[in-house]
Amino acid sequence: MATYLITGASRGLGLTIASILASQPESAVATIFAAARRDNSAQLKELREKHPGRVKFVQLDVSDDKSVEEAARSVEQELNGKGLDVLINNAGVMPWIHGGIEKMDDLNDTFNTNVTGVHRATRHFLPLLRKGQQKKVVNISSSVGSISLASRYQHLSTPSYKITKAALNALTVDYGLTFAKEGFTFIVISPGWLQTDLGGSAADLPVEVGAKEVVRITNEATKDDNGKFFDINVPQWDSKDSRDAGMYRGSILPW
Amino acid sequence: MATYLITGASRGLGLTIASILASQPESAVATIFAAARRDNSAQLKELREKHPGRVKFVQLDVSDDKSVEEAARSVEQELNGKGLDVLINNAGVMPWIHGGIEKMDDLNDTFNTNVTGVHRATRHFLPLLRKGQQKKVVNISSSVGSISLASRYQHLSTPSYKITKAALNALTVDYGLTFAKEGFTFIVISPGWLQTDLGGSAADLPVEVGAKEVVRITNEATKDDNGKFFDINVPQWDSKDSRDAGMYRGSILPW
Repeated sequence: MATYLITGASRGLGLTIASILASQPESAVATIFAAARRDNSAQLKELREKHPGRVKFVQLDVSDDKSVEEAARSVEQELNGKGLDVLINNAGVMPWIHGGIEKMDDLNDTFNTNVTGVHRATRHFLPLLRKGQQKKVVNISSSVGSISLASRYQHLSTPSYKITKAALNALTVDYGLTFAKEGFTFIVISPGWLQTDLGGSAADLPVEVGAKEVVRITNEATKDDNGKFFDINVPQWDSKDSRDAGMYRGSILPW
Repeated sequence: MATYLITGASRGLGLTIASILASQPESAVATIFAAARRDNSAQLKELREKHPGRVKFVQLDVSDDKSVEEAARSVEQELNGKGLDVLINNAGVMPWIHGGIEKMDDLNDTFNTNVTGVHRATRHFLPLLRKGQQKKVVNISSSVGSISLASRYQHLSTPSYKITKAALNALTVDYGLTFAKEGFTFIVISPGWLQTDLGGSAADLPVEVGAKEVVRITNEATKDDNGKFFDINVPQWDSKDSRDAGMYRGSILPW
């Protein structure tokens, strides 16, 4: 009977995670709060109509502190004294920079969404998470945020995405160390390069494959996993590109 | 006959680096551009008077794009057709947060100075660095920005500093990979916990010890060191605290 909140749930990975959770029995998943900036997604509307009262829309803009505060208040009312079990910080942006890092002019904006946005959601939902049974916070990062693996992703001209995902990893570990004593589990997951609006159609994997893995890792994670950086596990993945060796093998990624 | 520019050079580590460089023979160090937000440092004034024409003040606020652009223009005029050899991005802030990460409300501001500030200085001085002989960019980071070492620094309530230094490390590696083909060397150095206004009086080491090490590592670094994260080497350091094992041993730090 767990309750989940997913940010950036109007499309792509966030929507698909919400959909997979909604397909699980009510004995496992009670309520799914699908948070997004605007209520204009036909697919999310369809999902809510398919699961009335179980999938709920929450208006939440991670780039705006007031919006997150209000979202937390509205979820608190909906939960009516109960806690929130799992927060999945999925909202994020990946700007492409023509000309590489020298031309990057969106670093502050990307920080504000991809890192400070996760911080806003986490701190404002903390009181509800403290009352939850699972106390799990899952931050959607990316293997391109692994500084150790930077040369593998050198060809991707998304410098602000890479830098902010490294910062998100650091934020997650700091939260994990701080809240371990309260029984929290903070993890980061690299969901794979997925065929979404963000990932583009040339991406490695259908969004369902990555979303299913995010749900599996989220549900299997225990307190012993606090502060870890998970890759997904897709045994059928077989790249012809030698740079991809070791990808999607369910390993713990290096920072 | 190398030329250096150091940001945040009005006090602390930056000033001491400038002072050490100025003490080296002119055959090794020609001009030192000591950049700072305001020209109000008595110590920097004294250093300039001691080395007239060799230590030059540059008005530069890393948090303001226009200011950095103007600083680059004024240094270009001073160099009169010559290049800049070494850029030391030292300016940074370390806010203490009472109550830890949950209370952190300065993340965007700290990103703007510690990461985007370094990016601004780097991109605007790139044309001059391209004309330089050494093509070195040294970013002053910190071992507390190592996500791998996070548990060692759990007791330090400076979450935004830790997170932004991890992001600075990622920025440095992206720059290094991008500009290796042009002969650049980008490195990050953890200068140690130093007795400065930023580090406080309880810090491990006198500022001169860290500054001397920064100058040594900067001068010894070659293209093979591009993208590395250096710790200082202080053999006489002997901490009674077991958490400090391996510190200040001249090793390459993990991300």
